Amino acid sequence: MTTKSIGTMMADEQARESILSRLSGYRYTHTLGCERAARQLAFRFGYDPERAGFAALLHDITKRLSKEEQLYLCEKYDIIPCDIELKEWKMLHGRTAAAIAAAEYGADAEICEAIACHTTGRANMTLLDKIIYLADYIEDTRDFEGVERARELARDDIDQALLYCFNSSLTDLIARNKLIHADTVAARNWIIDHPAAAAN
Amino acid sequence: MTTKSIGTMMADEQARESILSRLSGYRYTHTLGCERAARQLAFRFGYDPERAGFAALLHDITKRLSKEEQLYLCEKYDIIPCDIELKEWKMLHGRTAAAIAAAEYGADAEICEAIACHTTGRANMTLLDKIIYLADYIEDTRDFEGVERARELARDDIDQALLYCFNSSLTDLIARNKLIHADTVAARNWIIDHPAAAAN
Repeated sequence: MTTKSIGTMMADEQARESILSRLSGYRYTHTLGCERAARQLAFRFGYDPERAGFAALLHDITKRLSKEEQLYLCEKYDIIPCDIELKEWKMLHGRTAAAIAAAEYGADAEICEAIACHTTGRANMTLLDKIIYLADYIEDTRDFEGVERARELARDDIDQALLYCFNSSLTDLIARNKLIHADTVAARNWIIDHPAAAAN
Repeated sequence: MTTKSIGTMMADEQARESILSRLSGYRYTHTLGCERAARQLAFRFGYDPERAGFAALLHDITKRLSKEEQLYLCEKYDIIPCDIELKEWKMLHGRTAAAIAAAEYGADAEICEAIACHTTGRANMTLLDKIIYLADYIEDTRDFEGVERARELARDDIDQALLYCFNSSLTDLIARNKLIHADTVAARNWIIDHPAAAAN
């Protein structure tokens, strides 16, 4: 597929089918759930549902890939993994998906950044970053402890919902003695430190 | 007090009295407990107990100071607080204590670094860093949930004890929606990522 403008992509059912054809099994179902959740959140918090849905469709497009394939894409698209991403290499799928989204589906910088940080978060997240992170966490097929509370919070306050997600994720990583990405801590600190951002 | 070499300081009861005279109430008792714990840990894990005790005596020497006094010491000793240290300014007491330790008590770089990072930890901690962090956490007057488990772990494996302390501290910060210092996450990640360091 050649690079197209996003305006074209949004209305392009063929592109949507192309993206979905690269997904299978649970990843396919999860992506459709994420697209639906992203559109709902966008509508609720004042963002363009088409753009949010497009980002959601693309967010896991490289998740099935092996470590070697992830590292090949890093090389190809000038992505320099940090230490933790080399060890927990599955984390790379956000950044490689963003590269594919730009190169093959014409996604712009804002959409690519939201895709790139959808597993870790980052300091000073855009509204689209927040929508994609949260949609990935709360979409309908998700079924883990705390997801219902995250959905409740997401009805009114996207930042409080995100803070709940970050706190839950960090608590889980701590309990399992897993590495913590600095960007997740930075994302969480930012929300605590900028309560006004809740009105974003 | 003029700057002296550490060799002199170690044997200098007058210096010890000078340090303790700057502490009062619980801080005085805690510091003596920390000194005792640091000497025990040093003996257990193969470090010089005199140097460990000296660092412990100095670790909280500026903790009683106000925000204005902490910032004055930062200015005086060229300490540049990071964002989180400006907000959670009490965190600065490790770095300002290290500056006083060097300037007024002749502490060397290794001792100052251990004092400086005793509240946050840091990546690739030295054995003395670990001893002071842990002594501060487990000394006899401490009485909070989990301290007994930390003491148990500290009998055999200083890194597992530290990991337990970091996990407990982070869990507590998350539960209270408090900011997390990046150095604490880096310290914890380092231990998980370098299991051989347990033999340090």
